[in-house]
Amino acid sequence: MIRNIKVEHLIETPVEKQQIELVERKGVGHPDSISDGLAEAVSRALCKEYIEKCGVVLHHNTDETQIVAGRSNPQFGGGEVTQPIYTLLVGRATKEFEGVEIPAESVALRAARDYIRNTIVDIDLESDIIVDCKLGTGSSDLRDVFNRDRVPVANDTSFGVGHAPFSELEQIVYESERMLITDLKKKIPGIGTDIKVMGLRDNDDINLTICCGMVGRHVDDMDHYINIKEEMADYVTDLALKRTDRKVNTFINAADNEKCDSVFLTVTGTSAEMGDDGSVGRGNRCNGLITPNRPMSMEATSGKNPINHIGKIYNLLSTQMAKDIVKAVPEVEDVYIKLLSQIGQPIDQPLVASAQIIPADGANFASIRAETEVVIDDWLADITKITQMVISGELDTF
Amino acid sequence: MIRNIKVEHLIETPVEKQQIELVERKGVGHPDSISDGLAEAVSRALCKEYIEKCGVVLHHNTDETQIVAGRSNPQFGGGEVTQPIYTLLVGRATKEFEGVEIPAESVALRAARDYIRNTIVDIDLESDIIVDCKLGTGSSDLRDVFNRDRVPVANDTSFGVGHAPFSELEQIVYESERMLITDLKKKIPGIGTDIKVMGLRDNDDINLTICCGMVGRHVDDMDHYINIKEEMADYVTDLALKRTDRKVNTFINAADNEKCDSVFLTVTGTSAEMGDDGSVGRGNRCNGLITPNRPMSMEATSGKNPINHIGKIYNLLSTQMAKDIVKAVPEVEDVYIKLLSQIGQPIDQPLVASAQIIPADGANFASIRAETEVVIDDWLADITKITQMVISGELDTF
Amino acid sequence: MIRNIKVEHLIETPVEKQQIELVERKGVGHPDSISDGLAEAVSRALCKEYIEKCGVVLHHNTDETQIVAGRSNPQFGGGEVTQPIYTLLVGRATKEFEGVEIPAESVALRAARDYIRNTIVDIDLESDIIVDCKLGTGSSDLRDVFNRDRVPVANDTSFGVGHAPFSELEQIVYESERMLITDLKKKIPGIGTDIKVMGLRDNDDINLTICCGMVGRHVDDMDHYINIKEEMADYVTDLALKRTDRKVNTFINAADNEKCDSVFLTVTGTSAEMGDDGSVGRGNRCNGLITPNRPMSMEATSGKNPINHIGKIYNLLSTQMAKDIVKAVPEVEDVYIKLLSQIGQPIDQPLVASAQIIPADGANFASIRAETEVVIDDWLADITKITQMVISGELDTF
Amino acid sequence: MIRNIKVEHLIETPVEKQQIELVERKGVGHPDSISDGLAEAVSRALCKEYIEKCGVVLHHNTDETQIVAGRSNPQFGGGEVTQPIYTLLVGRATKEFEGVEIPAESVALRAARDYIRNTIVDIDLESDIIVDCKLGTGSSDLRDVFNRDRVPVANDTSFGVGHAPFSELEQIVYESERMLITDLKKKIPGIGTDIKVMGLRDNDDINLTICCGMVGRHVDDMDHYINIKEEMADYVTDLALKRTDRKVNTFINAADNEKCDSVFLTVTGTSAEMGDDGSVGRGNRCNGLITPNRPMSMEATSGKNPINHIGKIYNLLSTQMAKDIVKAVPEVEDVYIKLLSQIGQPIDQPLVASAQIIPADGANFASIRAETEVVIDDWLADITKITQMVISGELDTF
Repeated sequence: MIRNIKVEHLIETPVEKQQIELVERKGVGHPDSISDGLAEAVSRALCKEYIEKCGVVLHHNTDETQIVAGRSNPQFGGGEVTQPIYTLLVGRATKEFEGVEIPAESVALRAARDYIRNTIVDIDLESDIIVDCKLGTGSSDLRDVFNRDRVPVANDTSFGVGHAPFSELEQIVYESERMLITDLKKKIPGIGTDIKVMGLRDNDDINLTICCGMVGRHVDDMDHYINIKEEMADYVTDLALKRTDRKVNTFINAADNEKCDSVFLTVTGTSAEMGDDGSVGRGNRCNGLITPNRPMSMEATSGKNPINHIGKIYNLLSTQMAKDIVKAVPEVEDVYIKLLSQIGQPIDQPLVASAQIIPADGANFASIRAETEVVIDDWLADITKITQMVISGELDTF
Repeated sequence: MIRNIKVEHLIETPVEKQQIELVERKGVGHPDSISDGLAEAVSRALCKEYIEKCGVVLHHNTDETQIVAGRSNPQFGGGEVTQPIYTLLVGRATKEFEGVEIPAESVALRAARDYIRNTIVDIDLESDIIVDCKLGTGSSDLRDVFNRDRVPVANDTSFGVGHAPFSELEQIVYESERMLITDLKKKIPGIGTDIKVMGLRDNDDINLTICCGMVGRHVDDMDHYINIKEEMADYVTDLALKRTDRKVNTFINAADNEKCDSVFLTVTGTSAEMGDDGSVGRGNRCNGLITPNRPMSMEATSGKNPINHIGKIYNLLSTQMAKDIVKAVPEVEDVYIKLLSQIGQPIDQPLVASAQIIPADGANFASIRAETEVVIDDWLADITKITQMVISGELDTF
Repeated sequence: MIRNIKVEHLIETPVEKQQIELVERKGVGHPDSISDGLAEAVSRALCKEYIEKCGVVLHHNTDETQIVAGRSNPQFGGGEVTQPIYTLLVGRATKEFEGVEIPAESVALRAARDYIRNTIVDIDLESDIIVDCKLGTGSSDLRDVFNRDRVPVANDTSFGVGHAPFSELEQIVYESERMLITDLKKKIPGIGTDIKVMGLRDNDDINLTICCGMVGRHVDDMDHYINIKEEMADYVTDLALKRTDRKVNTFINAADNEKCDSVFLTVTGTSAEMGDDGSVGRGNRCNGLITPNRPMSMEATSGKNPINHIGKIYNLLSTQMAKDIVKAVPEVEDVYIKLLSQIGQPIDQPLVASAQIIPADGANFASIRAETEVVIDDWLADITKITQMVISGELDTF
Repeated sequence: MIRNIKVEHLIETPVEKQQIELVERKGVGHPDSISDGLAEAVSRALCKEYIEKCGVVLHHNTDETQIVAGRSNPQFGGGEVTQPIYTLLVGRATKEFEGVEIPAESVALRAARDYIRNTIVDIDLESDIIVDCKLGTGSSDLRDVFNRDRVPVANDTSFGVGHAPFSELEQIVYESERMLITDLKKKIPGIGTDIKVMGLRDNDDINLTICCGMVGRHVDDMDHYINIKEEMADYVTDLALKRTDRKVNTFINAADNEKCDSVFLTVTGTSAEMGDDGSVGRGNRCNGLITPNRPMSMEATSGKNPINHIGKIYNLLSTQMAKDIVKAVPEVEDVYIKLLSQIGQPIDQPLVASAQIIPADGANFASIRAETEVVIDDWLADITKITQMVISGELDTF
């Protein structure tokens, strides 16, 4: 069956050339990101358990983790959590299949605790956080879908969006958080994992406002704290200047009032310890960013099953398509993909697969259209590859 | 102090003229909307209680309601919920102020139950839903903010976006859900409150895919069910044709397989009764829609305090600004507003207030710029009016 | 099969003639009694649902209701609950039987809310209390038991105890609470349902210490409060003197310090509103009393299934046997029954059925033994009558 | 002030000489005992934290831990928990004192997890059990009590009871469970911690019915299982015969049907993994036993604060008094202590302290009375010693 692919020539100032651009990334220790990470970690663990026990992935959606903030008393050189963070894993999972019982909630609990241990490295799992779990069972109709030896059908009428390439600011915002955690934190353990990067570009001025909860027991005193902030600002500015020729200003914890001893200090490195709740799907989109200058979908990608949850699959797929189009098709300045499903139809047959392209000046759009259609069609024909990539952990969801 | 207002001439095909447009609205009974509605109802009730008891609104954020789906056994002419829906109200609220104890959780519980009673009208509050509540107390720093007799300072570095005017499709999608519930349901009580409208426009073809959980005890049998679907489709198509000259096709419950008795029947009119969890901030933006062809913010608007929660205020304000600009400024085809705060700064002084405008052909952009700046500046000068409108219920948040 | 019935001549000063006697009763509004009442109300509702839907009672035990106290701000003439009481219904219930789905948790929720409405009459169910529910499913082995057309087998190795007749003090303590609630409260609505009666008899002096949470909105001021206490004390003393020729002293709310405005005032009539948690099985035994001068069982009777839960059945049965023995067998001064089951054996064949009897002076114990054996044997032969009496509500459990 | 001590000559057949005697002990891994143990472990940890941070023990009661059973799939040589056990720590604790914040819930969480790790040794804390926590704050009136430099006043009108010495059966039942866990389990790791011992003495025949959940991964197959049961039975019988000359029969897991592969196998060694919920205060009294032939109190001892919670203190104290009386006073065959408080009165001034004594034949009761009064009076004068012993862990509560 021929697929309904629409490639449109978009007349539009590319984001890189617009005056004002906003880009945000919530780091792995932000309460919303913790929720996303837990939701996805649980889903992956369930996928593996299902495959091991039943040979196929069974129905589940674990995309509603709720984090209820605790209370804490941070101190330079120490501090303590006074009321543990409460985490509720919510969702659906198949718990029995052809006579085999699947320990869905035990698997979820272990996966969640492992994820926290490995990601929110400064938290004490024995006293600082409670992990609770309420996984219901799904409706039997949906469970049915996963048994059949053919392309799954969409679970909903829903859409996914993606774009490529990243603008300079998008690259900078994304990399700043990633490198602070994976590189600079090794040298400066006082850096917490709850880092929020807000990037504003006003023509050629880039302004990076970074909010980072420092880990009290690795920060000796106010001088040390100030010193860490300076090192972080320099590090991020240097990083950014490798990606851009624009002017870059970096601000760390702009609300600090150091004279009043009012700074962003934590015990565990995340503000979930003190007043900041978190939910799945309210932070980064599946490309790792929040980009109001770009089309976005509201669908939570994390924690959804990667077999037929169309919101998840189409968001991830749109992003992959967009990336491949800018690689494979010459003279594409910006591409926006939108995929819309219809409930009950095979997921490789979207109601519409739309590509909006801003071509380079003077480009031949007919040839762009033809080549773009090929990329999209190929991906749709091979759509279950997305499922495999999710399960194997090749694709991030936030 | 002069405000940093940037008005930009956006060169872009207006959405109305793009080939593919997608618009979605989740109705009041959709699990995500129930979460939004509960979060906002609780916040409003708290605002009123604070004002009554203390004369000012105190710190609170109740923006993380989690709905854990139940189980049900729907039947034509009846049916029953077999496992109640579980609702957890999460957030922060000030519970004590200058020696006065505020019954925050009792107020929240009552407000939530009242909201459900009035909105999800086919649910039985005695057996079909559990309302639980976990409101922590906020950090004292934040509580502080509300006492001072001046413009509040932003609680975060965050942005809001808004646009105007609505495209034809946006109007149609929004009104379809609203009129089905407030008008047609009076005549056809079998219509449930969980209505999702997905609008797709491909050039001049509009396709409305509507998903609606019918209320079993008001539907006699399959014939009656089919009849209701037909009435709904006709009603929506007629409604749409008052807004557009384009071709309109309406599909109700496209996944039904009536021969297999597989249709979208419920007991309570919401899919939260059977497998669909819900969260705040994952559904409609504060203009009531999900619009991937437009800039959007990921911020949950519902349940945030309307005093200094900048994510809430700037989203609502951006939308009001955009609406006023298209009313007050001639020759504006489309306007996009983005407001970016900086944590700790007065909320009437955004880091940037950006307006991107697609002018009508041949318009005088200099005059558009000047008039737009006035609208924006006036609104910022009067920003606390947004707070009043929220508390009095004039502004919807989803 | 002959039953192992042992009737023993007990040489012992009867309780009525011992110097010191202690008897306690927790009224229906005491947090532990609320837990008991909820547990039993839920079990009865499930029994009826099972019989209606499946023709037989299916496995369930709902005997672990936990009440987590709220917070309140009581006032003469008003007051308010500031943090709702949290109630968690815990237990096991069969949710599916031969293809029929049983709405166990919805039934439980409704039964619990109805029970509260009818019993804790001064509480506002919309704002003062949260009812939550976590009913698991039982093990299949146990469910099996209920299907067979014969005497059920014991679910455990456990015992029940009972005694008769009530001493004077036992009658007085029991009736005081019952009459205050069912009679005097009609005239004096300020009397709360949380009444604890502690009776101490020192030879011929009876001391009744009564603790009662008054309902603020029905008490105008301190004078009114004091007046109510006096009326209650007079009422109880009068009541007691109909049962005894001993001296009676009654104290109401002995810890009150009226000069310091420190009295036992509540909003809802139960201390669960402020700091007093409650659990099943920690209050009255199934005869309505706590009697340290008598043998007691630790088994919670409330909420257990009345088919094969031997702790419940043997406690209720022991009490019935004891009552019938003192009615049917002459010259019995005191009788203590103990029934011990063995797991897996038919419940009409206890490992031992022991009766310890204090006969009247000069009684013929051989004839007492013979007649007692008949009463015990008849009851065991007709043991399922206890189940019927529980379901129909003829037997109290606390 | 002279204390109201009443020593009564009880004319009664001592339990050791009655025909039928029943004694029960629930082992440390029984769900009710786990609840007791958690409640007490949390209280002890809080006491230590309060002393460390504030110099005094502050108000708390953590006596309502609720255990909601999980689900499991036990297997010889392995097995897995499929749904984690859910544990809810409930109670009250002071969280702030003179400006010092006390991390009550974090302390509770850590203490609970440590207790489980050390006691339920075969459980995996990462996947088999959830520990949740809901500690409210107490009423300020009660918090007040703990500040004053004098004997605390009773928090309630309540009583405690105790007896001594243990009968043969009481000793045997108690020691059987203790030695199986602390001695034989070292050699036979398949023995689970959930051991219930029910002792029945019919004149000179002692019948021990023991129920023990075996740990699947330490039991190879059915032969191994049967072998363990035999070793346990022999071990217990040998142990008992050191304490008695009566005939002893020991039965392990009497409900097993080995031919049908229906035996008491577990994953974690406790039936909380599969269907058996647990609560505080429903198992052993503070002497470690359930003894229907003896006076008992319904008060939960575990988890109550050891400063002024009179139910806890008087139960522990009664038991210590009874033990000391049989040691110090000659010719006492059996002694029963009952202590009754009056709310608001100093705890060293009970409303009545009653000792009922069965003297040896021909004993001089006047001298017994005098010596008993001394023991009781001395203990009351030194009552806060009980508090110290609780905090230091010298006294068991179940």
